[in-house]
Amino acid sequence: MTRANLSAASGSEVRAAVRAGQWTRATHGLARGHVQANLAILPEAYAYDFLLFAQRNPKPCPIIEVTETGNPEPSFCAPGADIRSDLPGYRVFRNGQFVEERRSIADLWRKDHVAFLIGCSNSMDEALEDAGIPQRHLETEDGRISVYTSSIQCRSAGRLHGPIVVTMRPIPADRVEQAREISSRYPLAHGSPVHVGDPAAIGIPDLSRVEWGRFNPLREDDVPVFWACGVTPQAIAIASGIPEMITHAAGHMFVTDLMLGETRT
Amino acid sequence: MTRANLSAASGSEVRAAVRAGQWTRATHGLARGHVQANLAILPEAYAYDFLLFAQRNPKPCPIIEVTETGNPEPSFCAPGADIRSDLPGYRVFRNGQFVEERRSIADLWRKDHVAFLIGCSNSMDEALEDAGIPQRHLETEDGRISVYTSSIQCRSAGRLHGPIVVTMRPIPADRVEQAREISSRYPLAHGSPVHVGDPAAIGIPDLSRVEWGRFNPLREDDVPVFWACGVTPQAIAIASGIPEMITHAAGHMFVTDLMLGETRT
Repeated sequence: MTRANLSAASGSEVRAAVRAGQWTRATHGLARGHVQANLAILPEAYAYDFLLFAQRNPKPCPIIEVTETGNPEPSFCAPGADIRSDLPGYRVFRNGQFVEERRSIADLWRKDHVAFLIGCSNSMDEALEDAGIPQRHLETEDGRISVYTSSIQCRSAGRLHGPIVVTMRPIPADRVEQAREISSRYPLAHGSPVHVGDPAAIGIPDLSRVEWGRFNPLREDDVPVFWACGVTPQAIAIASGIPEMITHAAGHMFVTDLMLGETRT
Repeated sequence: MTRANLSAASGSEVRAAVRAGQWTRATHGLARGHVQANLAILPEAYAYDFLLFAQRNPKPCPIIEVTETGNPEPSFCAPGADIRSDLPGYRVFRNGQFVEERRSIADLWRKDHVAFLIGCSNSMDEALEDAGIPQRHLETEDGRISVYTSSIQCRSAGRLHGPIVVTMRPIPADRVEQAREISSRYPLAHGSPVHVGDPAAIGIPDLSRVEWGRFNPLREDDVPVFWACGVTPQAIAIASGIPEMITHAAGHMFVTDLMLGETRT
């Protein structure tokens, strides 16, 4: 199965292909027009802290859905889906450390687990593209965006604290205001930028050294624009030493049934 | 002290007047330009259910701030404020029943209490007014809006369930789309309408029989437009039989330091 095969698929078609092992790679460009989501699974004992953390940090953690404790079906955004098998890759963190990457977590799921689905800026890419604002990373072979851990601290909640992880898009200087305006209309896709311009001001000394994804160089007259990223919970798991958190693997998102247009304010 | 005295006051000036007993009435028209908030105080044992309920029902329950358990200061939206004394009226619900209305709750506050501040459509009134869309209720002597319990059910969360409470604004038919568009930009002020037109379709047989506030009659060519209302938690307390919930008294809101413009997406 190729990315082109699945680009016009529905959310449930993509999830079925993933569940059947027919799609094991990153999900950008699949089921275009559909909202894709970051995942964070936590023990119920941490669910209130995490939900409060998300409320206080809506840019990195815009919540699409929280499952009922112990129930792996996100019945609001993807009825019939199974959060344990419908993502092409998972990462497991224990006691604040990355432990392993996996294709399925069926054997790890417990009755006290709560799954949080968090908006992804993939959704916003299409709106920016529709407006003719270049998306440099989508022009590359693997379509991956540049991701960094910033020095901007999240507002803490209970036992949870840590830095905001950001994506960077090179935007032509004369389109930055328009990009800000458009993205502000998509709070579930991280909303408006958290920083525009000098990377050093938010603790990024060298843009070419990405933490995830690939470096997308600035062209002449481009300005680096930084949006909050749904990888932030992984940084929070590490900074806060959470006993257990299971997330998606970078770029390997959960594809929902929600349409991008539904998430516009 | 008159409403005119406090119309240009800051949030903290209004709160100081309330705390000193100099202002004991409804808060509409005070500290214009500032976000006003609905209040719901719950025992910590219900905090996760309530926060999840709010996440699932963002139109009736857009969360502005959740205080740390046991701490009566909303340090994000009103540093220095005291949630126990800075509203001009409170209502107490026990085991799903309204028990009493009070001026202060200093003697009721406990170490396991969590206060939720919830956006209020007062904030949106100004944006609609600025656009020249008439706000019939603001033209009346007491400025109170029409409030009803609808038959639209909230999405449930844990032990919490119940109907959406709505406000109704008569809007000229040719301005309804514009009102929808403007209000959609203010998710913290309940966002876009939950219903436009026939009241019977959402379980309101007779608009003249309001449950809170006053009836604001439709003029010729007006359409009734319904927005979700921050009184909804009170209906949830009753429907769900919550052991204890303390709220603001209708119209007697918490005035924050946040400016209306800051809540625009």
